Amino acid sequence: MVQWVYKFGDGEVQGTAAMRDLLGGKGANLAEMANLGLSVPPGFTITTELCAAYYQHDRTVPDALVTQVAAGMRHIESAVDAKFGDAARPLLVSVRSGARASMPGMMDTVLNLGLNDKTVEGLARQSGDPRFAYDSYRRFIQMYCDVVLGVEHQAFEDLLEYHKEDQGYLLDTDMAAADWQSLIEAYKQMVRARLGQPFPQAVEAQLWGAVKAVFDSWMNNRAITYRKLHDIPESWGTAVNVQAMVFGNMGEGCATGVAFTRNPSTGVNEVYGEFLFNAQGEDVVAGIRTPHALTEAARAANGSTLPSMEAAMPKLFGELTDIFARLEGHYRDMQDIEFTVQQGKLWMLQTRGGKRTAKAALKIAVDMVAEGLIDEPEALRRVDANALEQLLHPALDPAAPREVIARGLPASPGAAAGKVVFHADEAEDLAAKGEAVILVRTETSPEDIHGMHAARGILTSRGGMTSHAAVVARGMGRPCITGASELRIDEGKACFTVGGVTIKQGERLTIDGSRGEIIRGDVPTIEPELSDEFGTLMAWADKIRRLRVRANAETPADASTARNFGAEGIGLCRTEHMFFEPDRIVAVREMILADDTIGRRAALAKLLPMQRNDFVELFRIMAGLPVTIRLLDPPLHEFLPHADAEIAEVAQASGASFEKLRSRVAQLHENNPMLGHRGCRLGISYPEIYEMQARAIFEAAAAVGAERDETVVAEIMVPLAATRRELDILKALIDRVADEVAGESGAELRYLVGTMIELPRAALRARDIAGVAEFFSFGTNDLTQTTFGISRDDAASFLDTYERQGILPHNPFASLDIDGVGELIELACERGRAGRADLKLGICGEHGGDPASIRFFEACGLDYISCSPYRVPIARLAAAQARLDSGGGDLD
Amino acid sequence: MVQWVYKFGDGEVQGTAAMRDLLGGKGANLAEMANLGLSVPPGFTITTELCAAYYQHDRTVPDALVTQVAAGMRHIESAVDAKFGDAARPLLVSVRSGARASMPGMMDTVLNLGLNDKTVEGLARQSGDPRFAYDSYRRFIQMYCDVVLGVEHQAFEDLLEYHKEDQGYLLDTDMAAADWQSLIEAYKQMVRARLGQPFPQAVEAQLWGAVKAVFDSWMNNRAITYRKLHDIPESWGTAVNVQAMVFGNMGEGCATGVAFTRNPSTGVNEVYGEFLFNAQGEDVVAGIRTPHALTEAARAANGSTLPSMEAAMPKLFGELTDIFARLEGHYRDMQDIEFTVQQGKLWMLQTRGGKRTAKAALKIAVDMVAEGLIDEPEALRRVDANALEQLLHPALDPAAPREVIARGLPASPGAAAGKVVFHADEAEDLAAKGEAVILVRTETSPEDIHGMHAARGILTSRGGMTSHAAVVARGMGRPCITGASELRIDEGKACFTVGGVTIKQGERLTIDGSRGEIIRGDVPTIEPELSDEFGTLMAWADKIRRLRVRANAETPADASTARNFGAEGIGLCRTEHMFFEPDRIVAVREMILADDTIGRRAALAKLLPMQRNDFVELFRIMAGLPVTIRLLDPPLHEFLPHADAEIAEVAQASGASFEKLRSRVAQLHENNPMLGHRGCRLGISYPEIYEMQARAIFEAAAAVGAERDETVVAEIMVPLAATRRELDILKALIDRVADEVAGESGAELRYLVGTMIELPRAALRARDIAGVAEFFSFGTNDLTQTTFGISRDDAASFLDTYERQGILPHNPFASLDIDGVGELIELACERGRAGRADLKLGICGEHGGDPASIRFFEACGLDYISCSPYRVPIARLAAAQARLDSGGGDLD
Repeated sequence: MVQWVYKFGDGEVQGTAAMRDLLGGKGANLAEMANLGLSVPPGFTITTELCAAYYQHDRTVPDALVTQVAAGMRHIESAVDAKFGDAARPLLVSVRSGARASMPGMMDTVLNLGLNDKTVEGLARQSGDPRFAYDSYRRFIQMYCDVVLGVEHQAFEDLLEYHKEDQGYLLDTDMAAADWQSLIEAYKQMVRARLGQPFPQAVEAQLWGAVKAVFDSWMNNRAITYRKLHDIPESWGTAVNVQAMVFGNMGEGCATGVAFTRNPSTGVNEVYGEFLFNAQGEDVVAGIRTPHALTEAARAANGSTLPSMEAAMPKLFGELTDIFARLEGHYRDMQDIEFTVQQGKLWMLQTRGGKRTAKAALKIAVDMVAEGLIDEPEALRRVDANALEQLLHPALDPAAPREVIARGLPASPGAAAGKVVFHADEAEDLAAKGEAVILVRTETSPEDIHGMHAARGILTSRGGMTSHAAVVARGMGRPCITGASELRIDEGKACFTVGGVTIKQGERLTIDGSRGEIIRGDVPTIEPELSDEFGTLMAWADKIRRLRVRANAETPADASTARNFGAEGIGLCRTEHMFFEPDRIVAVREMILADDTIGRRAALAKLLPMQRNDFVELFRIMAGLPVTIRLLDPPLHEFLPHADAEIAEVAQASGASFEKLRSRVAQLHENNPMLGHRGCRLGISYPEIYEMQARAIFEAAAAVGAERDETVVAEIMVPLAATRRELDILKALIDRVADEVAGESGAELRYLVGTMIELPRAALRARDIAGVAEFFSFGTNDLTQTTFGISRDDAASFLDTYERQGILPHNPFASLDIDGVGELIELACERGRAGRADLKLGICGEHGGDPASIRFFEACGLDYISCSPYRVPIARLAAAQARLDSGGGDLD
Repeated sequence: MVQWVYKFGDGEVQGTAAMRDLLGGKGANLAEMANLGLSVPPGFTITTELCAAYYQHDRTVPDALVTQVAAGMRHIESAVDAKFGDAARPLLVSVRSGARASMPGMMDTVLNLGLNDKTVEGLARQSGDPRFAYDSYRRFIQMYCDVVLGVEHQAFEDLLEYHKEDQGYLLDTDMAAADWQSLIEAYKQMVRARLGQPFPQAVEAQLWGAVKAVFDSWMNNRAITYRKLHDIPESWGTAVNVQAMVFGNMGEGCATGVAFTRNPSTGVNEVYGEFLFNAQGEDVVAGIRTPHALTEAARAANGSTLPSMEAAMPKLFGELTDIFARLEGHYRDMQDIEFTVQQGKLWMLQTRGGKRTAKAALKIAVDMVAEGLIDEPEALRRVDANALEQLLHPALDPAAPREVIARGLPASPGAAAGKVVFHADEAEDLAAKGEAVILVRTETSPEDIHGMHAARGILTSRGGMTSHAAVVARGMGRPCITGASELRIDEGKACFTVGGVTIKQGERLTIDGSRGEIIRGDVPTIEPELSDEFGTLMAWADKIRRLRVRANAETPADASTARNFGAEGIGLCRTEHMFFEPDRIVAVREMILADDTIGRRAALAKLLPMQRNDFVELFRIMAGLPVTIRLLDPPLHEFLPHADAEIAEVAQASGASFEKLRSRVAQLHENNPMLGHRGCRLGISYPEIYEMQARAIFEAAAAVGAERDETVVAEIMVPLAATRRELDILKALIDRVADEVAGESGAELRYLVGTMIELPRAALRARDIAGVAEFFSFGTNDLTQTTFGISRDDAASFLDTYERQGILPHNPFASLDIDGVGELIELACERGRAGRADLKLGICGEHGGDPASIRFFEACGLDYISCSPYRVPIARLAAAQARLDSGGGDLD
C-alpha cells in the first residue's frame, strides 16, 4: 500500500525537511518544525506523487487515499479534541498547496473549511465570539466559492459593499455578528442562484472539493506560466496540506504575521516583518489594513505610530525571535516565516528559505560564513549566479509607477530611458549632443552598431533573445528588448504605434530590459553599486573554480570592462566588428566588391594599419593575458552597401563604375547567408583577407612585445571549419605571414592557431581537425543553429510556441541543449583530445555566460569559457558552483 | 632495397595483371600478355610508388633507381640483341606513362628514344631503309622536344611544311631519305636557337629526360582536370614503361593498328578497328592518313576501297583474332588493343579493358553471360550505373557541329533545344502553342515550376548542381544547366549577353545538360531507345538487390514515369509541390496570410478537395505499392506573393485589406529560410494545415480503397523533426484525424507515421524519436546542409574552389559525405533500431540516385532508397552492385 498521507503535529511526525520532493516545501517544513518541537497546528500532507497519479487517472483520486485521508482527519481530531462537522466542537481545517519549489500565490488555498450552518454555531459558542464565527463562515463561503466552485470573489465583495451602504457602515469592523449572519444568507442565495444548487453543507464534500481544487490549481495558467519562467518541471506536482485552523482573529490576544529572519532586500541581519492584531494571515497579505512593524527599530524607522510586536507582546516577541534563531541555526539559511497568535499562544504556520534580492543573497551568504553558519563553498552555492545581473546593470526604481504600453522579449537586462530615435546615425548625433536616446528599429544589422553604442537602450520589433540586437546589446551591456511584435514601426514617418498609442521621434521612452516592458515617459533608475560582499564572494569563487573565464570583446571599452569584471583574457575578438566604423566601412566595401585580387589587395592595404592598431590596443589592455582573435567570419554581404548612395561612395573610393558595383552587390546576394560564403570559406576563396589580418595581428604582437619587452602570444582562430584540409591550408598561410613579419621586424613571434567548432561535421571530425588545430573554441550559437536547423534570427516566430508546448524545455540559444548539441560537444572534446593530448578547449558562444550551460562545460572538462563582459562575474560564480557540483573545488 | 623496376618480355616476367596498382594498367597488362606467351617487345616498368617518391623528394629520383633502370636496359639489350647508344646495333625504346586507371592522352609518351646522329646511321644500315631511319629520327626529335624540352610541336611542323613547299611536295611520302636528313639539320638548328644548346646526343640523358617528363606529366593541367572529372586520387601516381621499339613503318610487311575485340559503340561481338600499312601507332591516332578497316565486312560497310587486313594479311589477321579471343577469354572483358606488324611479325603493344558507351556496356555484359564468359553478378558489376543516364535521356547527335557560347554546371543530363524565354508564364504560353522553349532565369523558385514543366530545358546563371532548378529539373527529367555565371541576364529587356553575343527572347538555343554546354541555334538530338539487354540486366539487378527502390514524385506524370522505370513505390511525395498550380496558389496565399485560425481554415477548406484528388491519383497509379507523403515542409515565405498585383489578388480572394496583407508579407520575411519556420514547425504552429493534409490523405485512401476493395496503406511523413515531442504532438493530431475520417467514411484505415531525419539533432536523438516514428527517411539534402553548415543554394560561390583545392573530394550534395554526414546516418540507424526493432529505414534526398552513396546506404542496411524517376534504373543497378560489393546477392 503506497503511503499517500504523512501526518505531523501533536507528537506524531512522519515527515522531515529532507522529504521536500515528496511532501512539497511547505509540508516538509511543517514536519521539520514539528520535529524541532515548535508549536505547529496538527495536520497531514498528501504527497506530490498523488498529484501525478491524479493527472494520470483523469483527475480522480485512488480509493486508498480516501481511507488515508480519513485516518489523517482522525489524527487531527484527536490532537485538537474536536470533530470535523461536529456541531458542538467543530474541527476547522485549512487546505493548502505546497510544491517542491516555492510558487508563492500561484496555487489555491482554502481556509476555515468545516464550517456550515450548524458548525458555525458551535464555533460561536466555543470561541464566545459570534461575530468572529460568522465572519469566519462568510470568509469560508467566499473563498471556497472562488477556489472550488468558480464564483468570483468580486460577487461577494459587491454584496458586502451593498450591505455596508444600506447600513451606513464604512469599515468591515462596523459589521456586527448579525450583519455577518444576514450577509451569509445573501451569499448563500447568490450561490444557489449562480450554481443552481446550495452551498455544500457536508464537510466531507467540502474537504474533497478543496483537495481536488488544489491539485487542479497545479495546471492553472498562472502556475503554468510561473513554472515556465522558473524552469520548474510539470512532472513535480504539488502536495496538499490539511491542517487544523488556528485563529489570529479570535479577538483579544490574537495576531498573525509574516517575517523574515534577515532583511530580504538588503541582507542585514535584523528581524524584518509585519503583523496585525486580530486578523487572519490573508489580511496581512491583502494589505487592507495597515500592518504593524515587528520591531521597535523598524517602527521608528517607518515613523509609524502603530505599536510594534516587540512593544505590545514582548514575551511572545521574545519567543518568536528565539524561534527565528533556532530555525536559522537549523536550516542554516534566512527563513521566511508565517505565524499566528491565538489567544496568547504562538503557532508556527510556515517556514521556508526566504526569497531575497541578489544584493541580500550576497550579504547573507558572506555574513553567514563569518557567523560560522556555513562554509565558503556553501556560500557560493547560495547565490544565484544569474541574479548577479541585477547588480551589474542599472535598474528601474521598483517603487515608481510605470505606464507599460507594450511588451517584448527581455533580451538584455537593465533599464534605460531616453528620446526615441529610429536611425543609428540620429542616435549617434543626439548622443554626441549629450542626449540619452533609445534606438528603435524593426531589427538591427551590423551597420547599426555605432547607433547601438551611442544609445542607452535598444528596442526592436523583430528578432529573438539571441538576435543581432540582443547579442550585441548584451555584449555592450545595453538594455534591450527584442521581438516586440505588436509595435508597428514606420521608420519613414519616424514613429511607432502600439495599442492605439503613437510614439514619435523625440518622445521619451523607458525600456526595462529585465522584464521586457516598454514604458511611456521616464521611470527613475537606480545605479548599481558593487558591495564588499561582492568582492569577497568573487574571490572565493576564483579560489574554487577550475574553468578560466574570458570575455568576448573587440573594442577597448569592452576589453577594459571585461578586465575590470575579472576576465582572464579575451576568448573571442570578432574582427568583423572592427570593420563597421564609418572610416572603415568604405574600404571594406571596396575590398568585397573588387573584381580581382589586385583590387582586393589595394583595399586591404588601407585596412591593415587600422586593424593593427585595434590589436595593439587589445594586447595592451589584456597585458599578460591570452587574446583569441577570430579571423573574418560573417557573410560578406553583411557589409554590402544597399542604398545607391552607399554604392556611389564605394564607386568613388575605388574608381569602379557604379553599375558594375551594383551588379556585383546583386551577385553576392545569398538566400541563406548563415550557411553561405562566410567563415574560413572566405579565407580559402580570398586568402589575401586572412593574410592582411594575420599580418595585422603579428605586427601588433611584435610592437606591443617590444614595448613591454615580453612576447605577446596571440591565439588565432579560424572560424567555421568543416574539414581538416581547410585548416591545413589556412595554417600554412598564417605560418607564412608569421615568418614574413618575424623576418621584417626581427621579433620572436609565438602564437597558436586553432579553430571554432561550430558545425556538426567539425565536431564529428574533431580528431582529424585537432591534428592541425592547437585549440578548439566551441561556437555554440552556430552549433545550435546547425544542429537544430534553426536560425536564431528567425526562431522568434515559433520558439515561443515550442516552449509553451513543452517541446523545448528552454530556448536552446540561451541555455545549451545538452541532449543534442551537448552530445556533439562531448564527442568533439573526446575526439579532439584523442587527436592532440594537450588540446586547449574553450567555448565562446552565448552559452558561455549561462550558469546551466557552464555546469555542462565543467563536466566536459573545458579549459575556459568566454562570455560578454557584463556576464564575467556571473560566469566566475557559476564556474565555481559547477566545480562544487562536480565534487571538485576542495580548498585543502 | 625497394624494387622500383619490374621486367617483362623474353621469358622473364616479374609482373602480373593483378599488380595494376603498382605497375599501372599498361605495365601490368604488358606483363600479363608476356605471361600468356604473346609477343610483347621486352621492357620494364618503373612503379607508381616511385612516382610518389619523386614528388615527395622535390621531383628527384633515388640513386637506387638509376642502378635498377640500368639493369632493366641490359635486360632489353640482351633480349633484342642490341645496345642502347651503339652505333652499329642501336637499341631504341619507347617511354610511356601508365597509371592505375586509364587516362588516355592525358600524359606524355616518347618514342624512338635512343636515336642520335650516330645511331641513326646504324638503324639505316640495319633496316636497309635510310628513309625509315631518318624519318624515325626526325619524329624522335620532334616528340622529345615537345614533351621533354618544351619546344612546341607546331614549330617542327612549320619547318616540314616549308621544306615540302620548297621542294614542291604534297605528301610526307614524297619525302626521300635526303629530304629527312636535311630537315633534321633544320630541326637541330632551330632547337639550338630556341634552347641555347644542342639537341641531346647522349642516350642516357635522353632516357632520364623522358622518364622525368612522364612523371612530370602526372601533374600537368590536363591530367589534373581529368583526375578531378573521374575521381582519380592524385596519390595514385603513374608508372613509366620503357620498352624496346618495334616498327610498323619499316617498309613492306609492316603495319600498325588499334582494335577493340567488340564494337565499343554498339556492343556487337565483331572485330572493330583500324590499321595503316607502314606506319607508327601515332599515325593511326593522329588521323593524317585514312586508316584501313580490319575486316572485310567493315570495309564493305564503310564503302572503303582500301584493302582490309583480313584481305591483305590473312594469316596475320587470323593470328590477331586468335589473340583477341585469348585475351577476351583471359580477361573476360572486351579489350582495347594496340599492335604492330614489323616485317611480318605481330607484336602486341597494349591491351586494356575497352571504354564503351552505356549501350555497348549493357550488350557486352549481357552477351558475355550468354557466352558463358561471366556470370550475372559479374555482368552487373560491368555496367557503370551512372552511365545508364545516357540511355534514359535524349542526347545531342555527337557528330553534329555545335557553337558553344558559354558553359555552366551539368545539372540535369540530356539535351534540349528551343526558343529562349525569360519568364515561366511565357514558357507556359508558348509551350501551349506547341513551341519548344528553353527557360532562362537568373535562378528559379517554386513559382517557376509550371514554366519549368512547360520548358524543354532550363538554364540559370546562379545556383549549383543541387539548386532548386537542378533538383526540380532532374526530378522532371528536364535537361538543365545551372550556375552559368558568365551570362548577364536582363530579364527586363528579355535578353542575355555572354562573351559579346546577345541572345534575345525567341532566339533558338540548345543546351547540353550532360556537358553543361550552352549552344547557339539547334543541334539535332537522338531519342533514347531501351534495348532488350537493358531489360535483362535490370531483371538480374532486381533479383540480387536487397534495397528497395522508390521514386520521389508528386505529379501523376512523374509517378507514371517512375513506375515505368521500375519504382517500387513513392518514397517522397512533396505536398508543397502540389500547391503551385495557378488555381491553388491564391488559396495557399490566403491561408498563409490569414491572421487567425478561422481565416486559415477557410482557405484550407478550398485546398482540401484539390489535395485529396492529388492523392487519389497517386494511390491509383501506385496501386499495391507504398506511397510516402511528406506533410508541408518549405518555409511559408516561398509561397508569399511579392508583386503588388499578386497581393491584390489575394486581398480580393480573402477579403482582407491590401495594406494588411502587405505588412503580413513583410512580417513573414526570414533571413535564413532554410533554418526558419518550416517543416513540422508549421504543423506545430498551425495544426490546421496538417489536419487538412492528413484528412486529404485519409479520404483519398478511403476512396481508392473502396474502388479497389483493398486497404490503401499511406505512409505519412513529418518533416524536419528535431525532437521526439514534435512527433508526439503531430502523431496525436494525425491519429485523431484518422479516427474522424474512419468514423465518417466507415473505411478501415491503415497507415504509418514516420519522420524525415534531416537535422543532426534528429540523428543524435534517433532512439527517442523512434519511440514514436514508425519509419525514418533520411533527408540527406538538408542533413548535408546542416552538418556542413552549407546552403546548397549558395554553395556555388565557393564549392568549386573547395573541390579544386582538394578540400572536398566531391560535391557533398551530389555524392554523400560519408565521413561526416555518413556517420550521423549510421548512428541514427543504430539508435533508431535500438528504439524500435522493426523501424523501416529509407532515404529520399538527392543521394538516393547516386551509386557511390547507394553503396553506403546498402552498408547501413537501409530498407529502401528513393530518387527522381529518371534515376530509378540507375538506383536499381547500383543497389545490386552495392549488394554484390557487400558480399551479398547470392542467387542460390
